[in-house]
Amino acid sequence: MNNNQVSKILNDPVYGFITLRRGILLDIVEHPYFQRLSRIKQLGLTYLVYPGAHHTRFHHALGCVHLMNQAILTLNEMGYSINDEEQEGVKLAILLHDIGHGPFSHALEHSIVSEIQHEELSHIFMQQLNKDFGGKLDTAIAIFKDKYPKRFLHQLVSSQLDMDRLDYLKRDSFFTGVSEGVVSNQRIIKMFDLVNDEIVVKEKGVYSIEKFLIARRLMYWQVYLHKTVLSAEFLLMNILKRAKHLCFNGHDIFTTEALSPFLIQNVDRPKIKSLSFLNSFSRIDDYDVFTCIKEWVNDKDPILSLLCKSIINRKLPKVKVSMSEFSEDEINENLSFHQKKLGFSNEEMKYFVFQKTMENNAYDTRKDKIKILYKDGGLKDITEASDNLNVQALSKPVRKYFLFAPYF
Amino acid sequence: MNNNQVSKILNDPVYGFITLRRGILLDIVEHPYFQRLSRIKQLGLTYLVYPGAHHTRFHHALGCVHLMNQAILTLNEMGYSINDEEQEGVKLAILLHDIGHGPFSHALEHSIVSEIQHEELSHIFMQQLNKDFGGKLDTAIAIFKDKYPKRFLHQLVSSQLDMDRLDYLKRDSFFTGVSEGVVSNQRIIKMFDLVNDEIVVKEKGVYSIEKFLIARRLMYWQVYLHKTVLSAEFLLMNILKRAKHLCFNGHDIFTTEALSPFLIQNVDRPKIKSLSFLNSFSRIDDYDVFTCIKEWVNDKDPILSLLCKSIINRKLPKVKVSMSEFSEDEINENLSFHQKKLGFSNEEMKYFVFQKTMENNAYDTRKDKIKILYKDGGLKDITEASDNLNVQALSKPVRKYFLFAPYF
Amino acid sequence: MNNNQVSKILNDPVYGFITLRRGILLDIVEHPYFQRLSRIKQLGLTYLVYPGAHHTRFHHALGCVHLMNQAILTLNEMGYSINDEEQEGVKLAILLHDIGHGPFSHALEHSIVSEIQHEELSHIFMQQLNKDFGGKLDTAIAIFKDKYPKRFLHQLVSSQLDMDRLDYLKRDSFFTGVSEGVVSNQRIIKMFDLVNDEIVVKEKGVYSIEKFLIARRLMYWQVYLHKTVLSAEFLLMNILKRAKHLCFNGHDIFTTEALSPFLIQNVDRPKIKSLSFLNSFSRIDDYDVFTCIKEWVNDKDPILSLLCKSIINRKLPKVKVSMSEFSEDEINENLSFHQKKLGFSNEEMKYFVFQKTMENNAYDTRKDKIKILYKDGGLKDITEASDNLNVQALSKPVRKYFLFAPYF
Amino acid sequence: MNNNQVSKILNDPVYGFITLRRGILLDIVEHPYFQRLSRIKQLGLTYLVYPGAHHTRFHHALGCVHLMNQAILTLNEMGYSINDEEQEGVKLAILLHDIGHGPFSHALEHSIVSEIQHEELSHIFMQQLNKDFGGKLDTAIAIFKDKYPKRFLHQLVSSQLDMDRLDYLKRDSFFTGVSEGVVSNQRIIKMFDLVNDEIVVKEKGVYSIEKFLIARRLMYWQVYLHKTVLSAEFLLMNILKRAKHLCFNGHDIFTTEALSPFLIQNVDRPKIKSLSFLNSFSRIDDYDVFTCIKEWVNDKDPILSLLCKSIINRKLPKVKVSMSEFSEDEINENLSFHQKKLGFSNEEMKYFVFQKTMENNAYDTRKDKIKILYKDGGLKDITEASDNLNVQALSKPVRKYFLFAPYF
Repeated sequence: MNNNQVSKILNDPVYGFITLRRGILLDIVEHPYFQRLSRIKQLGLTYLVYPGAHHTRFHHALGCVHLMNQAILTLNEMGYSINDEEQEGVKLAILLHDIGHGPFSHALEHSIVSEIQHEELSHIFMQQLNKDFGGKLDTAIAIFKDKYPKRFLHQLVSSQLDMDRLDYLKRDSFFTGVSEGVVSNQRIIKMFDLVNDEIVVKEKGVYSIEKFLIARRLMYWQVYLHKTVLSAEFLLMNILKRAKHLCFNGHDIFTTEALSPFLIQNVDRPKIKSLSFLNSFSRIDDYDVFTCIKEWVNDKDPILSLLCKSIINRKLPKVKVSMSEFSEDEINENLSFHQKKLGFSNEEMKYFVFQKTMENNAYDTRKDKIKILYKDGGLKDITEASDNLNVQALSKPVRKYFLFAPYF
Repeated sequence: MNNNQVSKILNDPVYGFITLRRGILLDIVEHPYFQRLSRIKQLGLTYLVYPGAHHTRFHHALGCVHLMNQAILTLNEMGYSINDEEQEGVKLAILLHDIGHGPFSHALEHSIVSEIQHEELSHIFMQQLNKDFGGKLDTAIAIFKDKYPKRFLHQLVSSQLDMDRLDYLKRDSFFTGVSEGVVSNQRIIKMFDLVNDEIVVKEKGVYSIEKFLIARRLMYWQVYLHKTVLSAEFLLMNILKRAKHLCFNGHDIFTTEALSPFLIQNVDRPKIKSLSFLNSFSRIDDYDVFTCIKEWVNDKDPILSLLCKSIINRKLPKVKVSMSEFSEDEINENLSFHQKKLGFSNEEMKYFVFQKTMENNAYDTRKDKIKILYKDGGLKDITEASDNLNVQALSKPVRKYFLFAPYF
Repeated sequence: MNNNQVSKILNDPVYGFITLRRGILLDIVEHPYFQRLSRIKQLGLTYLVYPGAHHTRFHHALGCVHLMNQAILTLNEMGYSINDEEQEGVKLAILLHDIGHGPFSHALEHSIVSEIQHEELSHIFMQQLNKDFGGKLDTAIAIFKDKYPKRFLHQLVSSQLDMDRLDYLKRDSFFTGVSEGVVSNQRIIKMFDLVNDEIVVKEKGVYSIEKFLIARRLMYWQVYLHKTVLSAEFLLMNILKRAKHLCFNGHDIFTTEALSPFLIQNVDRPKIKSLSFLNSFSRIDDYDVFTCIKEWVNDKDPILSLLCKSIINRKLPKVKVSMSEFSEDEINENLSFHQKKLGFSNEEMKYFVFQKTMENNAYDTRKDKIKILYKDGGLKDITEASDNLNVQALSKPVRKYFLFAPYF
Repeated sequence: MNNNQVSKILNDPVYGFITLRRGILLDIVEHPYFQRLSRIKQLGLTYLVYPGAHHTRFHHALGCVHLMNQAILTLNEMGYSINDEEQEGVKLAILLHDIGHGPFSHALEHSIVSEIQHEELSHIFMQQLNKDFGGKLDTAIAIFKDKYPKRFLHQLVSSQLDMDRLDYLKRDSFFTGVSEGVVSNQRIIKMFDLVNDEIVVKEKGVYSIEKFLIARRLMYWQVYLHKTVLSAEFLLMNILKRAKHLCFNGHDIFTTEALSPFLIQNVDRPKIKSLSFLNSFSRIDDYDVFTCIKEWVNDKDPILSLLCKSIINRKLPKVKVSMSEFSEDEINENLSFHQKKLGFSNEEMKYFVFQKTMENNAYDTRKDKIKILYKDGGLKDITEASDNLNVQALSKPVRKYFLFAPYF
């Protein structure tokens, strides 16, 4: 017998190796819908601040499957049965949980496919793949949509301790080099137990959870909501808005074939259900977006050109951060200062000077809570289980205000 | 005083942090010529085999500067003086040593700018930057071209133990997850000494050098010359050849503005000296190449379309490897087998079925040798200093033969 | 010139390499007083819970010197001058800050040299070494005792961000394998600045400090105050108490020559100033203590024998933990339960059943505060600088109660 | 259900976590015979050169069990059945493979229990434990002694790719900080296959094996046979020889109770089979040996005292290394030079000046070979499978000569 026939081993700098069993799982990995993810960076433009952050959604999805294997193993060893069909289902569900992401999705979701979120698109992709693979994704879809009886399987895919979060915090921390975000996901998984078909964490793991929530908070402010990262993302969002605006007003601008349908029309909910939409969407990746930006540097619209130069040459908008809102006066002062230099209209200046609000809470008490299991069988919410005020503090949202203005 | 004014600190997953002093060094980093490197992957298509390998030439160049800082520090501590101008020069030289690389450069050098190597282009870039920066790169260029009196400065930039090799082996090993390539570059640098203005390695470092040469060999066969990596690279080379062939024969194919001049004409040595060429070249990056490939999937030329599908959907050519040459007969057998399925002419089938030879020797005795310094002041070549046959074996080139045939 | 003559390079799994310049620093390292530290574990009996925790005070002291080198480098690069004498002084001060530690010092300080703390002993050692080395430690001692004009030098040796803490958190985390304690000490040091001759941390470093304080808290509860670690330490303390009690009452028990003077008499402040005391103290290490325990397993005193068996065979006292004090009743219930089995007197049972209180606050607002420097030159205490309640919470002490009872 | 009841999780800095199932395995770990290993350093006196090398045989044995779990998992996934009894047996066999080691065993085996090797003692320990545990170690012993039908189980315990080697190379490399020794043991295990009930390695793993053999070679010369490490070990050997010599000649020297029987008599094969011997042997550990040395510093025998001072104060014998034998003349010259200073007799001077030969070959062709399995089913020895001369070179023994002389 030959292991090569049984499974495929991939090198992964984060976990050492990722092993994928041959069968439907590997077939899906080889499908063009999934291969596309290898051309979509997990953290979009973050590499402009953290030069190592070029890792892809493809890699993240495989990392999630690796952690899912560990979670299944742990629960099996404890005597909880998860049958073969469920194992395959929950692995497929996590493999595909992000399949609906487009390139630079934060920017894209707010400028191109505005009202639809990637979870909804992931579901549509799964349904199409289910057709192609003769119903083999039924269980995966049930788990993904929280329709499967054993609720903990859904929680492994989507909850405050799901494999998605456990992988991305570690992976993003690894590739950015921000060691503050390192989480001990191996230990957290080993501390899993089940109560009433729900994932709980054993008492011994309480410090690991506390550390996880804190790491999450630090990663948000140091990476995901880093002021320069936000600056790049809002810049990109405005580029795409401007490009769409020009298309709608009859300007003929360069576009790749794949991106074209998303610039010349509004994509609304009814449209996204069609197979042709799915195939269009499945063709766009980082290359389309960036190539357009590079071409638009030379576009005759001065606003589009200026915005694109700003990203290509990394002359990103300057940012001020504050814990309280910037006043109308302060914004207008900035606006008129830059308007004198740039000469654009009031309306047009909104591409250049604007305020944004960002909010984060590391532990969201409105969602499924993280429950700690004590030796006597008692359960407590993590905010009560931890022995000081830290975790309670983490559940309060922190809000910051950002004022953006041109680099020039 | 504020450190922010003195230097910029970047997170690097490989070394923790990279510190760049403000001044000419950081000005060059911010120049569009250099920023372009953040859109060029260090290892081209290798990510199709090692999914973590998306790191860029930008990141590698900064890593080299970090190691150069360490080398300067070590030599200073030993009492060798390197003045400020030399320090700046040798750092600029290593920062820019790869500025002449294009996207997917192995493929590109053999299909688009065929006769010119990236070292020559790097030199041209440096000369142009020297003009722009009023002669501040004079020393850097002298060191790069080995015209500077203190020869060891050139050796730090280009030799069998230069900062380039020390960084890329470690960095490529890190991002691919191939732990066999980990080298102890920190230790090697600490073992540097000078004899007659040349870099030598102290006796205590002999095992680190041995390990370095072996790691280099293993990285060649496991990564750089991995059969599937080669398969992807030759595929890309053939795509570009075919595209150029079509352009030369009057076909109208899609191209980005940046890539266009390189497809419609032959780029020869006289052309590359012009500023307009340099500006053209400095605009192409991974995005141009991949976007074209994505568009060409739908090109009406069936050969171009088929080759491009093969790369986009990761259906890479199958490869056989052998220590001896494949016979004409074996190649022809393969060729006619696939010709029946594909229906192309003999000439056209060369895009699909072909043999390639690859050679590697980890230690090249024809170049500057690695010399070991003994406590008694004696010097020995590493092949004689090591206490067994290993290193001698490493200096013999190993040759392998690869036979490629379509996936389908 | 030969680097071997200039400095000595040691392999360190935590930092890669530690470089020590030849001269007084290396002479002190080679002195028997310092060599003794290689026979004293940094974390005493912690290896009974974390099997990797066998690292020594010797290794930690060298790690501190390594970080001190980095701190000096950072401050120098920013333009603050630290002259050669000060550099040597501050390195010697950190090298020797723990020289006064005895073996298993927590247990020892409470049972053998009860009223004297290791800082005082470190000072006495330094004074003796200063005599031996002809006054070369004058500056080091001034810095250690906070008598040196440039106060920040003392802060690098002793404060809430000193090299001691930065090294031990990282090192203890490394060897225990408790990843929750990993701190980014390299980054913290790079964020240092000076205001009014005091160490402050630049604004960009605020999250690293936050993470550092949290890691410190987690290390306290997961390692230093882990209930089983405490169990082993209190057991050892009671063993030494019992042994001393027996000696004082005329029993003839085994003892090594080095440990003997500390068992047969009370060591009080006047005694410790004599050279003969110092030489006695400098001879005891982990080997004396453990060898005695091994011999005492067969002592005819049943209490001493039972306590020693408990540690040698790792049958450690059972522990209950609570956030509120255990009642007299509960303690007495435990006591009488075990008294029936063991048959010792009420007084003697106190070796076996007892309550202890442990308190920790990660950030101590009564000491020198950690100050954050803003771009506008303003300074804020870390508890005000951080953008949520976390850090404030960390400055509140947490108290836990532990009830110990025999394993048997 | 509670995982705590099913298994125990230990933090391990090398692998993250080691999981031990409750039952016979954990019972053996808690037995005093095994607990003793936590007081025996894996690398003896190596910490005098590599200050991190304080890890124990206890820790190594647990690491081996962890790798054995992985090997079992890999073979199971490939469809080879290993039943519960065999799994328990092979884990117990690897757990106990080193139980027969004494403290500083290289020194001890040549001076105290001269003719008996630790493998033989391990077997005796296992037999005694088998009696105590009612025959539960029958399978483990059969596997250990290569009497079990499925030969590959023995190979996992003892062969050129056994879990012992895979763990100790990685662990020793980790704790010494010698990165040259890092091996990818996780990958090697994943490449295992079986042919005729023997472990073979799949073709894809050939470079990992090559790297493993080279790492082994480098660890031998950089760590295990490092000249200063050897110096310390031979010094210790001579100390024990001298102590035994004094005892045999009626001198009354200090000794711990546990070590005493090994100094006052010769331990020969018949003696070691008795339970009383086993219990004596199971009581000696690093603490006995080092405490004696510390006491002997003050012994009235000037030779014993001098040798002991040399180790306690780290004034280790000076060493010359050569690829050819040192001549009688050179040795005598050294001897008479030092004799003048020390004033001992010719016979006595042999404790101070002597020559030793050390030999190592990374791959031993006289033992079970490492076989590579090709896709076509063919098998090749690794020396033929590797594509250059390296591995063949590794199978040739390298011999070095060491001349020792006093530090003073």
